Amino acid sequence: MKAVVLLDFWASPFGQRCRIALAEKGVEYEYREENIMGDKSPLLLEYNPVYKRIPVLIVDGKPLCESLIIVQYIDKVWPDCAPLLPADPYDRAHARFWADFVDKKFHECAKRLWQLKGDAQAAAKEEFIEILKLLEGELGDKKYFGGDAFGFVDIALVPFVCWFYTYETSAGFSIEEAAPKVVSWGKRCLERESVANSLSDPDKIYEAVNVYKKRIGIE
Amino acid sequence: MKAVVLLDFWASPFGQRCRIALAEKGVEYEYREENIMGDKSPLLLEYNPVYKRIPVLIVDGKPLCESLIIVQYIDKVWPDCAPLLPADPYDRAHARFWADFVDKKFHECAKRLWQLKGDAQAAAKEEFIEILKLLEGELGDKKYFGGDAFGFVDIALVPFVCWFYTYETSAGFSIEEAAPKVVSWGKRCLERESVANSLSDPDKIYEAVNVYKKRIGIE
Repeated sequence: MKAVVLLDFWASPFGQRCRIALAEKGVEYEYREENIMGDKSPLLLEYNPVYKRIPVLIVDGKPLCESLIIVQYIDKVWPDCAPLLPADPYDRAHARFWADFVDKKFHECAKRLWQLKGDAQAAAKEEFIEILKLLEGELGDKKYFGGDAFGFVDIALVPFVCWFYTYETSAGFSIEEAAPKVVSWGKRCLERESVANSLSDPDKIYEAVNVYKKRIGIE
Repeated sequence: MKAVVLLDFWASPFGQRCRIALAEKGVEYEYREENIMGDKSPLLLEYNPVYKRIPVLIVDGKPLCESLIIVQYIDKVWPDCAPLLPADPYDRAHARFWADFVDKKFHECAKRLWQLKGDAQAAAKEEFIEILKLLEGELGDKKYFGGDAFGFVDIALVPFVCWFYTYETSAGFSIEEAAPKVVSWGKRCLERESVANSLSDPDKIYEAVNVYKKRIGIE
């Protein structure tokens, strides 16, 4: 059995992706909370010298960084249950495209909803609604993004569901109005133990975001 | 045999990644040059509605977007010759990490070398030299980034070698001084037919960059 350690931070959607994937595969591991607001641990600096950020998955002493790469690794090393990526090459590429879209477009824009104010925030909100509509279109009437089985794109996106309250409250809009199917999908995902046990309380996220904003002076 | 079409633009490092991967695999395909400075073709808009950009690989009528995802797809569909990603899950993740680093850090910083001036350009240059040194350290004394065989990280990075002249001339520094092993590696890669036939003339890149800068008013 492999010795698995996850360096993580409770509110990180990227860390939560790894936790969900490990739970789906039934992998036992040691969780180590990093104080990302304070000094970084020597372990984090040693194991992720390039980005110096969580999550880092350490397997038998060897580090893996960047959440989507970690999830793909988990899928490859523990292939026997709950395949996360589809087997078909085209479907795999399609899943990678949308997971990558969550990083490149969704997350990048979502940050601006709570970090900015005024016109810049309004522009971010408009862009975010377009992004939600693209996800809504891609999801369609499917149960999960990949179809009937919970998988890679779900894992990439679902941790942000517990940030929806922060997005809506910061920028003043309703995600359900823009993307009702995405909201239903989020609720469906939260019925899974792997997801429910990994995600944070939306109120606590909102509170932590406000503490963070005060600290960096964008209150 | 699959019908393969590549929507591309001659100077695009991202398109060149796909061309190199297809050449390594010996895949025959139709190359369609897009006029990215002018109107986008209906085909491009139809097949990449999210990003509306090249490269797009169309296989039997089905589109694939985002160059690193396309290269992984090519490796999976034509596995019989020249494997691009290593078989071992940890090595695969490691290769993905560095290819992703080329997109997230190298390319993002490299653009600033020729788009900015003054202090902002100087800051980009300092950051870029650090990035080059990380790549130099990762390459070490290996023949290719993955070891003895040309592979995924090489394909991700090598198209930028023909941009080195533009970076150096725009920002006034020597890449060879910062990363001599990376420069030697680039020359070694250019001995491969797949690379030599896919890359652009550095002078033509520099010329095209200057035309582009005039057009967008950052001359």
